[in-house]
Amino acid sequence: MMIEVRTTSYRQMVDITARVAAAIEGSGAGLCQVFVPHTTAAVVINESADPDVARDLVAAYEAMVPSIRFAHAEGNSDAHLMSTLLGSSITVPFEGGRLCLGTWQGIFFVELDGPRLRKVRVTLL
Amino acid sequence: MMIEVRTTSYRQMVDITARVAAAIEGSGAGLCQVFVPHTTAAVVINESADPDVARDLVAAYEAMVPSIRFAHAEGNSDAHLMSTLLGSSITVPFEGGRLCLGTWQGIFFVELDGPRLRKVRVTLL
Amino acid sequence: MMIEVRTTSYRQMVDITARVAAAIEGSGAGLCQVFVPHTTAAVVINESADPDVARDLVAAYEAMVPSIRFAHAEGNSDAHLMSTLLGSSITVPFEGGRLCLGTWQGIFFVELDGPRLRKVRVTLL
Repeated sequence: MMIEVRTTSYRQMVDITARVAAAIEGSGAGLCQVFVPHTTAAVVINESADPDVARDLVAAYEAMVPSIRFAHAEGNSDAHLMSTLLGSSITVPFEGGRLCLGTWQGIFFVELDGPRLRKVRVTLL
Repeated sequence: MMIEVRTTSYRQMVDITARVAAAIEGSGAGLCQVFVPHTTAAVVINESADPDVARDLVAAYEAMVPSIRFAHAEGNSDAHLMSTLLGSSITVPFEGGRLCLGTWQGIFFVELDGPRLRKVRVTLL
Repeated sequence: MMIEVRTTSYRQMVDITARVAAAIEGSGAGLCQVFVPHTTAAVVINESADPDVARDLVAAYEAMVPSIRFAHAEGNSDAHLMSTLLGSSITVPFEGGRLCLGTWQGIFFVELDGPRLRKVRVTLL
C-alpha cells in the first residue's frame, strides 16, 4: 500500500501512525514494514505525545550536520547524510490487526529536503 | 515473546544476545526482529567480545548530542535523538534454530534515559 | 545467499544493488533483508546516480566522529560507532522479482575499517 505525504518545510516530521495503522486493519499478526523510496527523507519511531520532541529532533538533525565542504552539486548532501543515519525503513510487529507500538511511540515520516510530495510504502508479512 | 531488561545507568548497553537466542531455539529458518517499545532507548548489533567497545559507544553517543537548547520539558531530548539515530528495532536472519550473527556480533539493548525497567519484543517470521 | 565484497579504503561505499537484485530474480513478492555480519561495517540505501553523494557521505561519517579518547585497544572505535548509527541491515520490499527501490536509490555496503574482504547475507521472506 502506498501513502502520500505532502511536506511544507525543508526539515519536518509528519506523524503517519494513523495511516499505517489503517493499512494493517483486519490483518491478524505479523510484521509491518514502512519503506521510504526517497534518498533525502527517512522514517523513524519516536514520541508523538509532546510535539516539542519532534521540534527538538528536527533542530538536532540540523545541528549534527558537520561543517565540511560537500561536493554534490545539488547542495542537499546534508539531507542524504541524515537519511542514511535515520534510515529508509522501519519494521513494527502487529497483533489482532493492531500495531504493537509502545505507549509513547508514533511513526514519523522525516522530510529532510522539502517541501515536496512524498510516498511511503507499507508492506505486511 | 517479551524480554525484561533492568538498567542501572542513564546511558548503558546491555548484551541481550543469549536471551534473543533462547527465543528462537528450535524455530528452523527465518528472520528474527527485536523491537524496543520505548522512545528513549534503542537496540543495536555490535561487538560483544571487548567490553571497552560498549563503553566507547556510550561515551560517543553522549559526545554527539549537539549543544542546542531543547524545548521538551522532560529534559531528555538527547535520549529521543539518539533513539531515532540508533533505531527501535533490528532484524537478524536465523537458520537451524540459531541466529546468523557474525563472529564478533552481539545484540545490545541501549538505555539512553535510565535507570529503568524496560521491555523488548522478539518476533519470528 | 552470501555476497562477497572486497574493499580498498579505510572508509568506502560499495554499490551492491545489482548483486542484491540478482539474488531475488524470479522470487515473486515479499521482503528482502540485506545483513552485514561485521561490527565495523554497515549497509545503507541512498543515491547511486551521482558518485559525489557517496563521497560526501564518507567525508561526513569521518567528520561526525567525536574527538574523545576511546578505550578499545584496536583503535577502531570510530568504525564501531558509525556501524551502530548506520545499521547492520536494511529491508527492501520486492514485487514481480524486482526490488521496489525509488528512482535514485541504490544499496551500499559501507566499509568503515578497511580495506578488508567482507560478506553480506541476503534473506528473502
